Amino acid sequence: MHILMTGAAGMIGRKLTARLVKDGRLNGRTIERLTLIDVVTPEAPASFPGKTDVSASDLSAPGVAAKAVSGKPDVIFHLAGVVSGEAETDFEKGYRVNLDGTRMLLEAVRAANYKPKVIFTSSIAVFGAPFPRSIPDDFHLTPLTSYGTQKAICELLLADYSRRGILEGVGIRLPTICVRPGKPNKAASGFFSGIIREPLAGQEALLPVADSIRHTHASPRAAVGFLIHAAGLTTERLGPRINLSMPGVSCTVGEQIEALRRVAGEKVAARIRRAPDELVQRIVAGWAEQLDAKRARDLGFMAEATFDDIIRAHIEDELGGKVA
Amino acid sequence: MHILMTGAAGMIGRKLTARLVKDGRLNGRTIERLTLIDVVTPEAPASFPGKTDVSASDLSAPGVAAKAVSGKPDVIFHLAGVVSGEAETDFEKGYRVNLDGTRMLLEAVRAANYKPKVIFTSSIAVFGAPFPRSIPDDFHLTPLTSYGTQKAICELLLADYSRRGILEGVGIRLPTICVRPGKPNKAASGFFSGIIREPLAGQEALLPVADSIRHTHASPRAAVGFLIHAAGLTTERLGPRINLSMPGVSCTVGEQIEALRRVAGEKVAARIRRAPDELVQRIVAGWAEQLDAKRARDLGFMAEATFDDIIRAHIEDELGGKVA
Repeated sequence: MHILMTGAAGMIGRKLTARLVKDGRLNGRTIERLTLIDVVTPEAPASFPGKTDVSASDLSAPGVAAKAVSGKPDVIFHLAGVVSGEAETDFEKGYRVNLDGTRMLLEAVRAANYKPKVIFTSSIAVFGAPFPRSIPDDFHLTPLTSYGTQKAICELLLADYSRRGILEGVGIRLPTICVRPGKPNKAASGFFSGIIREPLAGQEALLPVADSIRHTHASPRAAVGFLIHAAGLTTERLGPRINLSMPGVSCTVGEQIEALRRVAGEKVAARIRRAPDELVQRIVAGWAEQLDAKRARDLGFMAEATFDDIIRAHIEDELGGKVA
Repeated sequence: MHILMTGAAGMIGRKLTARLVKDGRLNGRTIERLTLIDVVTPEAPASFPGKTDVSASDLSAPGVAAKAVSGKPDVIFHLAGVVSGEAETDFEKGYRVNLDGTRMLLEAVRAANYKPKVIFTSSIAVFGAPFPRSIPDDFHLTPLTSYGTQKAICELLLADYSRRGILEGVGIRLPTICVRPGKPNKAASGFFSGIIREPLAGQEALLPVADSIRHTHASPRAAVGFLIHAAGLTTERLGPRINLSMPGVSCTVGEQIEALRRVAGEKVAARIRRAPDELVQRIVAGWAEQLDAKRARDLGFMAEATFDDIIRAHIEDELGGKVA
């Protein structure tokens, strides 16, 4: 089993790499080779007994995609992409990396004339308000960002290339990944993680929106689980509609805070400070609150059952079980 | 008022040109200039008092789109495209013409740094079975052809370019255009027109599917009306969801034949001969039967009320009012 991963230096990429190395197998076959690429050189996993190639390269540059698939990887995890904020501020870069980069990867597979599994990380940003209370699997895609537009276009390409038998694609629409490890970033969604991560680390966190704001979350661990599960789905089981909204925990900010209080105590929860921010409030108002994700659940994709579980996953995976 | 039309040599393009020349005005302004392009040179309208440029050019070739918008047309009717069958048999040509050609047009507008109205002819091929009985406006796009995929991608691009204020886009999803004038073609949908057109012209027509097959139709005259109406919609009225399923007459083949009998008599209707064709039956089974088109109707788009009206439009517009 040879696996290619794009965007391998990112948070999800690193966690997926660690999980694949730990498992040693995917879909019942031993992993013999890992090809890891990103715009910065991914770290080669220390304990992997097979062959590892790591390289810094941009999929949208000429020849890069062809080189990446030249070893005919059996499974391709295509995680690479410019994030939402950057795709909005840099129109050309967003389309070049997120759309052209993906198209070049798919075209490289077509030219290589073999049929790999291609797992693509899409996003619930393909949806745009106004929404029903819970978004059904057959809801239309009317993204309100260039990032969401690019993800939606890549979903359509992946489905057409799959339908034509060029590859076996699965597009997974990730909800907001929470709790993101590491430092606070400038993403408008950053506070969803920040109000859990910083208090657990003994730091104060700012909350820019009302406690009543509802959103859908899945842990980094769950996201890695989605990717592994997607790689194991047969085309017969998946059917022709290959792009799926992933399950997650839909809860309000107030419910996030209650969960933090239950899991880590009042002292930790008291480290959240209300600091309303109109810009963030406006952006968040356009986001999906809840998704049915019925098809994904029926196909066996599993997220956490409660936000308490999401906090516990963070404490186990990032804090060695300890709360500050 | 300067109008650019791509695909101007096609059936809809020629009829739209004739209508614009006859009206002399669009959105209350005198039409002073027409730029008509297609892969074959469009015919210059004889009676147009303004300036006309006609040229044979391929939008997906370098520099063509920039040249097409160099005169900063106020309204762009983007009708150009490879049809469904050809986009399926020639993968590369379909993507090059239907996707890259459209993207190059949108990019040329962005580079020209002005804000035209862009009316794009999409198709109900953006939808793919299985369907609800009537397809709602918020139904997802899961096309089952490369043509439908390309149209859906162009809709997403048009919406994002509109959202960013680069242009004012309207995507109109045309139902099957019936009665298509001219000779029978090899499109799987050809019989929907053939069973009306040939009998009215004194010829026998073959019917490859069951009388119970339901489909949605609009006349060429209605399609031209949709395009003109779309050009007059303000962005305020349209809102951010700029791609719209057009209304049409949803009826069964049996109801089409009854209408022909009512309008033209038993002698004409008797010229239809049943000749079941499994391939056509299989293709047609994946097509949309009915669309709500509620938003389009609310926005004032008008199709015929009955299939009788569609037949009468054909007799008036193509047969000089006479039936053979």
